[in-house]
Amino acid sequence: MSSVKRVHNFNAGPSILPVSVLEKAQSEMLDYQGCGMSVMEMSHRSKEYESIIQTAEADLRELLGIPTNYKVLFLQGGATLQFAMLAMNLRPAGASADYVVTGSWSKTAWKEAAKLGATRAAYNGESSNYSRLPAQGDLTLDPQAAYVHFCHNETIHGVEFKKEFEVPAGVEVVCDMSSDFLSQPVDVSKYGMIYAGAQKNAGPAGVTVVIIREDLLARTPEKLPVMLDYKILAESGSLHNTPPCYAIYIVGLVMKWLKDLGGLPAIHKINLEKAGLIYDAIDSSGGYYHGHAAPDARSIMNVPFRMPSEELEEQFVKEAKKADLIGLKGHRSVGGLRASIYNALPVESARVLVDFMKEFQRKNG
Amino acid sequence: MSSVKRVHNFNAGPSILPVSVLEKAQSEMLDYQGCGMSVMEMSHRSKEYESIIQTAEADLRELLGIPTNYKVLFLQGGATLQFAMLAMNLRPAGASADYVVTGSWSKTAWKEAAKLGATRAAYNGESSNYSRLPAQGDLTLDPQAAYVHFCHNETIHGVEFKKEFEVPAGVEVVCDMSSDFLSQPVDVSKYGMIYAGAQKNAGPAGVTVVIIREDLLARTPEKLPVMLDYKILAESGSLHNTPPCYAIYIVGLVMKWLKDLGGLPAIHKINLEKAGLIYDAIDSSGGYYHGHAAPDARSIMNVPFRMPSEELEEQFVKEAKKADLIGLKGHRSVGGLRASIYNALPVESARVLVDFMKEFQRKNG
Repeated sequence: MSSVKRVHNFNAGPSILPVSVLEKAQSEMLDYQGCGMSVMEMSHRSKEYESIIQTAEADLRELLGIPTNYKVLFLQGGATLQFAMLAMNLRPAGASADYVVTGSWSKTAWKEAAKLGATRAAYNGESSNYSRLPAQGDLTLDPQAAYVHFCHNETIHGVEFKKEFEVPAGVEVVCDMSSDFLSQPVDVSKYGMIYAGAQKNAGPAGVTVVIIREDLLARTPEKLPVMLDYKILAESGSLHNTPPCYAIYIVGLVMKWLKDLGGLPAIHKINLEKAGLIYDAIDSSGGYYHGHAAPDARSIMNVPFRMPSEELEEQFVKEAKKADLIGLKGHRSVGGLRASIYNALPVESARVLVDFMKEFQRKNG
Repeated sequence: MSSVKRVHNFNAGPSILPVSVLEKAQSEMLDYQGCGMSVMEMSHRSKEYESIIQTAEADLRELLGIPTNYKVLFLQGGATLQFAMLAMNLRPAGASADYVVTGSWSKTAWKEAAKLGATRAAYNGESSNYSRLPAQGDLTLDPQAAYVHFCHNETIHGVEFKKEFEVPAGVEVVCDMSSDFLSQPVDVSKYGMIYAGAQKNAGPAGVTVVIIREDLLARTPEKLPVMLDYKILAESGSLHNTPPCYAIYIVGLVMKWLKDLGGLPAIHKINLEKAGLIYDAIDSSGGYYHGHAAPDARSIMNVPFRMPSEELEEQFVKEAKKADLIGLKGHRSVGGLRASIYNALPVESARVLVDFMKEFQRKNG
């Protein structure tokens, strides 16, 4: 075990990684398994690197139970580039796509798609400042839509779908799972496409995972630039050009860590425990802390909450930082505080935060 | 100094990094300068990370002497995504762009731009299998072109421009400098835009540097997806969304290493020495080794060469690998061998290769 300084890291992303992953990467930095090179120095077409990327994909497939008729791509540009790419690839000319708008990220996905073609908002929660999620009856879904897009967990607003809504027969479901990817078991077969920026639960910034059902690749139109063309990228196994090799290597190490831990059911249990600790602290504070999300929409990954005044919120962030609790300032669009409690955050860090919250309230409440 | 195994790394990219850069990254892996986090775990909007990206940019500006009216962007998707983005951003609707086609990479850049609008090949060296570069008189440049694009150094064919050609007044020069970026001093002011995938001389795969004159940002059309829009990306200082944080951190360490070494004039001298050693070995082999590139077009970064038979070439690669000389197999489109001798390759590695070449010829020639 390392004796270096490590803080309690509540960053929203990029965010905490398992310490054992970092230690492994550190030990292999100058010489990966006796090959005399860093992973950063390897040809992406070498046997060593092929094994790294293929093992990362195989472990991801095993963890999520990805059916064989789905392709896994390791791309660049973050979820934000996917907002445009998925519309370019999956919405045929003249067709419309439905967007379920439940927070900043699904709104941005919608706006990006709207630049390039027809869209509809099947739901828009803006009037509640995205504090709740739609019931089935709140959705007006277009049975002719090329797809319906939603965001499984809104990182900024802290709302997370607990069960998926029903969609009209023949409409594909496309899901931005960036901030709760790999936090819990998922039935991939329900989705036409899932995508996720890695920098929450899967690895470092700089790689985006796309999981897409093979038959949807037939929708890709002619003459897309190669780096925006799912079909070409899928055919090359993410190796059309040089991929973000080191970021994918770290993703592979995170997959091993998750498997060793017992996979998604095991991490889900841990995540529920951490989220429970913090929501309990909020709910038992007599209103001193109050969550942004409606209780039935609460995320197990991102907990945005407010306090009685902005001054107290500032003081909280400042004192927390002194106590090595970092990354707790909320996003400007919601304000207040936000605790992001991703997979790699130890339960102990959630306990330390809860103790800090209680002590802060005792002294200042 | 480290005592781990390190090979002589002639990879074409991703490629060798300075050992001191890797050692620094290794030492900071779990705790960057006492902040209790890896660089991979930091918010891209934290003070610590802002300092990392801003220092990387400032050092790059200093090394290349980038004028203040140029923006520096750290993007994703490799040079291949830039092939499309530069055409989307810099070629107004209805306008044509000129392409000087001197090898695989400039050809691919041309094909990508041709998908999206009008292009002309101002020169095409395909008939010589891209072994030479055009003289000024070989170019048929369109005075109305939105820009003329060329590749400063063709990684596969090993041809490198020694002096730039003249272009008609008002035509912007756009240059793919991926594989000789930072290998020698450059007059940035001659270019409208320079871009380079980092994974040769600037850092690891996963980040692409774009240097663009500010006034050209006015050409960006409306309604481009944000991640494809130079104007938006420039306005945000490469922080519109999460950048490839760790790759940029490594680029920053490489910039420090280059500065400590004496900057681009110093590394240029070292690069000329390494290239000289290898070309001398080729020229003094009595034709046993023969370079792909015409002598006046020879690259100081990539040296593709052939041997009397494919069997000997295979044997060479195999025996070289046993002697810890790796990455010497040529690209399939040229065949034979290729020694990529980027900035971070020590002169000693070039000497070891030359000794190996001489010994191989003595035994098998």
